[in-house]
Amino acid sequence: MTAGAGRLRVGVVGLGRLGKRHAENLAYRVPGASLVAACSPVEEERAWAREALPAPRLYDDYAALLADREVDAVWLVTPSSLHAQQIVDALRAGKHVFCEKPLSLDLAECERVLAEAERYPHLVATIGFMRRFDPSYRDAFDKVQAGKIGRPFLVRSQTTDMNDTEGFFVRFAATSGGIFLDCTVHDIDVARWLLGRPRAKRVFAAGAVALHEGLREFDDVDNGVAICEFEDGKLAMFYASRTQAHGNDTHSEVIGTAGGLTIGRNPRANRVEIYDATGVRNECTPSFFDRFEEAFLYEARAFVEAVGGGAQAGATLGDALEATRIGVAMRESLVWGEAVDL
Amino acid sequence: MTAGAGRLRVGVVGLGRLGKRHAENLAYRVPGASLVAACSPVEEERAWAREALPAPRLYDDYAALLADREVDAVWLVTPSSLHAQQIVDALRAGKHVFCEKPLSLDLAECERVLAEAERYPHLVATIGFMRRFDPSYRDAFDKVQAGKIGRPFLVRSQTTDMNDTEGFFVRFAATSGGIFLDCTVHDIDVARWLLGRPRAKRVFAAGAVALHEGLREFDDVDNGVAICEFEDGKLAMFYASRTQAHGNDTHSEVIGTAGGLTIGRNPRANRVEIYDATGVRNECTPSFFDRFEEAFLYEARAFVEAVGGGAQAGATLGDALEATRIGVAMRESLVWGEAVDL
Amino acid sequence: MTAGAGRLRVGVVGLGRLGKRHAENLAYRVPGASLVAACSPVEEERAWAREALPAPRLYDDYAALLADREVDAVWLVTPSSLHAQQIVDALRAGKHVFCEKPLSLDLAECERVLAEAERYPHLVATIGFMRRFDPSYRDAFDKVQAGKIGRPFLVRSQTTDMNDTEGFFVRFAATSGGIFLDCTVHDIDVARWLLGRPRAKRVFAAGAVALHEGLREFDDVDNGVAICEFEDGKLAMFYASRTQAHGNDTHSEVIGTAGGLTIGRNPRANRVEIYDATGVRNECTPSFFDRFEEAFLYEARAFVEAVGGGAQAGATLGDALEATRIGVAMRESLVWGEAVDL
Amino acid sequence: MTAGAGRLRVGVVGLGRLGKRHAENLAYRVPGASLVAACSPVEEERAWAREALPAPRLYDDYAALLADREVDAVWLVTPSSLHAQQIVDALRAGKHVFCEKPLSLDLAECERVLAEAERYPHLVATIGFMRRFDPSYRDAFDKVQAGKIGRPFLVRSQTTDMNDTEGFFVRFAATSGGIFLDCTVHDIDVARWLLGRPRAKRVFAAGAVALHEGLREFDDVDNGVAICEFEDGKLAMFYASRTQAHGNDTHSEVIGTAGGLTIGRNPRANRVEIYDATGVRNECTPSFFDRFEEAFLYEARAFVEAVGGGAQAGATLGDALEATRIGVAMRESLVWGEAVDL
Repeated sequence: MTAGAGRLRVGVVGLGRLGKRHAENLAYRVPGASLVAACSPVEEERAWAREALPAPRLYDDYAALLADREVDAVWLVTPSSLHAQQIVDALRAGKHVFCEKPLSLDLAECERVLAEAERYPHLVATIGFMRRFDPSYRDAFDKVQAGKIGRPFLVRSQTTDMNDTEGFFVRFAATSGGIFLDCTVHDIDVARWLLGRPRAKRVFAAGAVALHEGLREFDDVDNGVAICEFEDGKLAMFYASRTQAHGNDTHSEVIGTAGGLTIGRNPRANRVEIYDATGVRNECTPSFFDRFEEAFLYEARAFVEAVGGGAQAGATLGDALEATRIGVAMRESLVWGEAVDL
Repeated sequence: MTAGAGRLRVGVVGLGRLGKRHAENLAYRVPGASLVAACSPVEEERAWAREALPAPRLYDDYAALLADREVDAVWLVTPSSLHAQQIVDALRAGKHVFCEKPLSLDLAECERVLAEAERYPHLVATIGFMRRFDPSYRDAFDKVQAGKIGRPFLVRSQTTDMNDTEGFFVRFAATSGGIFLDCTVHDIDVARWLLGRPRAKRVFAAGAVALHEGLREFDDVDNGVAICEFEDGKLAMFYASRTQAHGNDTHSEVIGTAGGLTIGRNPRANRVEIYDATGVRNECTPSFFDRFEEAFLYEARAFVEAVGGGAQAGATLGDALEATRIGVAMRESLVWGEAVDL
Repeated sequence: MTAGAGRLRVGVVGLGRLGKRHAENLAYRVPGASLVAACSPVEEERAWAREALPAPRLYDDYAALLADREVDAVWLVTPSSLHAQQIVDALRAGKHVFCEKPLSLDLAECERVLAEAERYPHLVATIGFMRRFDPSYRDAFDKVQAGKIGRPFLVRSQTTDMNDTEGFFVRFAATSGGIFLDCTVHDIDVARWLLGRPRAKRVFAAGAVALHEGLREFDDVDNGVAICEFEDGKLAMFYASRTQAHGNDTHSEVIGTAGGLTIGRNPRANRVEIYDATGVRNECTPSFFDRFEEAFLYEARAFVEAVGGGAQAGATLGDALEATRIGVAMRESLVWGEAVDL
Repeated sequence: MTAGAGRLRVGVVGLGRLGKRHAENLAYRVPGASLVAACSPVEEERAWAREALPAPRLYDDYAALLADREVDAVWLVTPSSLHAQQIVDALRAGKHVFCEKPLSLDLAECERVLAEAERYPHLVATIGFMRRFDPSYRDAFDKVQAGKIGRPFLVRSQTTDMNDTEGFFVRFAATSGGIFLDCTVHDIDVARWLLGRPRAKRVFAAGAVALHEGLREFDDVDNGVAICEFEDGKLAMFYASRTQAHGNDTHSEVIGTAGGLTIGRNPRANRVEIYDATGVRNECTPSFFDRFEEAFLYEARAFVEAVGGGAQAGATLGDALEATRIGVAMRESLVWGEAVDL
């Protein structure tokens, strides 16, 4: 760790809803980390930081934060279109980088970041695929590694959100990259992680507009399905939806030659079951925020440990590139109505 | 089997809702049985039998049915207060007897029937504790026998009905024997069956009137709880309710030194799960009729096999006596507010 | 109904494992039906029929059974390759026909049967997609029809069998049509049934050989995944497997704009849960025979009712043709590595 | 809050396994609290504190800690027999007090503490029944308060631990107060909390020694069951066990006139389900430590908020006295074999 007193000095960049959560975790709940700086162009967000965080230095300009010599690592929770350049700038400024997914929606940009990162092997750079840090996903990964299901050969995984009747994501459709690059990238990363990091060979995708007609003009859908074949013969199936009635239902399954594992197949909100005239039921996690609260925390802890010399626990830039590569191919397949070879 | 052509010739007595089900099972779904006669004092019920059954001889008088020499076995689905004498009469007429539970609410009467039955060892007489024939209860029993949970020492069991807003059972309270003799006898029999037929040593019972105030004048409750200690140190806990919102929730649990089994802990109506704005749910079995449809059928098949020389699979008269003995003690405990030693 | 005494006189053809089950259902558990004849070229099977069935006329030759004027309907449980011609012959002989799936693996043959059947509108001809008669599938269908999940637009469905270490299906691979035509046809039919009988527009399929290398020479796989796009914009995803460790896990899900339904997501063997040092668990249905025992019975009852003038409840020949058409396209997609337009 | 800089300055007393967890929570995860002191007579535990905590002042003597004017509140995680006097001493020293359960196993001592506490109404004193702070228990409580199950009238609750083959608790039996005072007090508190804090009227208890024969000499059991009747006619049933094979299975149920709630009925370790040759299963929480990790944290936060003027969220001394009163009566009932009136 480069920090004097043994603590990694972090500057968080971007203080939207998710940025706030990262900032609070880093400030109060990550041993070995000190949140020393925060950066946002939005005055309200800086005002929040002044109140809620332990007196970080506040910047409205990313370059200024990078110039802060008391910052060892930057934590990027910024719009996706900025990620690639901000990572490069951070590395050049000698900072470790954590960046929210995706690395970039553009493959060439992804490759440019990887090339740059190779020049700074002493710096940690990771992309925030937080599911790898959810305790249940982690338990499943460990069981797969331990051979509990034999040889894994198929992953089924889904990211489905509760329907947003306001359709925020429709307005966002022009820049989101579409449902596969926005949602399914998480599942792609989960699949590759559980299957041993295979490279994709071919994808096919299809979709439906169930509720949000406005997506059609962007060649996007509110429900998408996809199949991915990997070079080693393994397979993955994906489902993404923006229109669920019951909550954020993110679940995954890995199937092997001696059994299978599901992770989160019933998106229980907690341990309560209700029985009444409607039957026996449990409520569901309303959003990914609720579902992955712990994962965001453990992700931050793992990053700090990695900087301190621990194992790289999260997704590498290479993993992020492969997720984008597959997501882009799915988007093409959806638009063209054909399988896409990679 | 005493029947000429190898089939047991059965006469069903009582054609109420449950009697009709037994009659249909015996007529169409029990290999080795022929339903040759039916008896009911109610003309409408005999009319139903004329339509729905394969031409049985119809009687409005039990004595007349007993005089029918072409009847090998009687199947009593009559009011509880008639059971004891009808069993005795059937045995004296040389018929095998199946009788719905309970044997009798009166212990002396139970003993009188047992004494009489001892004089007819060649005749099968069994009481219809149908849970012993439910495939799931049977699977649990087999697993216990096979030592899968070590030594079983505790049973928890419940019979809870969906609330009947018409409160039929309130009008029935004067003669039902109360909630323990009416409902919990099933659980008592299950407990003794799973625990190896121990004799009871002490019981304690308590109750609440949740909705049906009319029960108070009969010293009865609409929700009852009880503990039973057995002579061999084993234990049972019971719950009975007439006021459930979700359905008939009959479930049991047997706990041993190496594990436990639950039977029916979620009273799923079927294999469908619904997810919508209320969460993830399943509907429930509305009544014991729905829950134990298979059990009534397998019970009849087992009786026919027992007459044919197979193992006695159901509850003996002795089991039924012990269930009544325990149920009566629970009722006393409820009224007196004290533990009752047996 | 054409039968004199009001009962449909049925002749069952084929007395293998599944044929025996159909025969017993028709003989003993289907009101309105009489099993009057049975046909098998295998002497052992006819011997079984002599013992187990109520004295049907026995034939070793299909033509002889068709010539039996006391037979109103034939029940075909014969090898798939015989189905098409046997149906045609039965219709020409004036018999109603129930035929196990598939109608045929060859599209031209399917169409020939449909053309022939149009000449006999007074005769019932149905293909045995029994899931439509499973009580849970039926409940889901009714809920969809009642609008409980809004507008359905996506079905996910799977047929997965417990691994057969003897690999019977490998020897069968040359004639089975491959995993999609052998297993997924059921899911295709379920999807179309739940989604309102749409026509397919495009399919994509992929597969893996997890355990049974011998399948490769037949261009077959032991695990297959597929996506089907329908003309009305609806979607289906399928999974088929021959290598599960836990049992026959046949389950389906239908997703609508206001919620979703799963059918059989946990393939519970019964209502027992076991808790011990391994956790809390339930055992699973070992085979489709155990899972769909009720469905086979209700299917037979529905056929008899349909002959008697009731609604056509099962899959029509047209449904069966469409299932084959989709299954054939999946097989092509698997072999070619491309999406296939229909 | 009495602390100068707005933070409650806490001294933790007792640094065993549970004390360590409390200390870490207070040191790092409770906004508004500072862990400024720790007390243990055990040098190893103080050494641990030196390493793991942010430089608290360390004491080996409780009186010395009480004399520390920079301590606003003491956090007692000491042997049960010391609780009562330590609470009194803390109050007299002007400190707020959090004390692990139980208040005392002796009723007279409980009452003495309550009398003393009445003299210090400005000081917060609470007993650590942490289940009230578990998110699922809290959700159930809120639903009951919101009338979701109508009027609650029955609680069933259990505390069952994985079997400790070393039988630590046997050696502990002489001072533990027995299974009801050691384990069931939690369930008693849950029952009263969910039912509106009724007073007990009568209890009955029974037990079995399933595995640990050494308990007999202490009139204790390794499995106990009990019924409690409350003055307002409500009921509770309890089960406690030291011999479970599957883990710590702490679960509760509250039943009302319009439905019921279960909390933790399947003690899932996480969101993973495993399917393999044994069926479909989930692993279980091994110990109360794993099950109630969050509850211990939220409990500490609530205490700090209560000192700061927030609502008293936890169990009062009066609640703790009533739990002891009921637990003592259960123990008497177990020994005497009679119901005990309170």
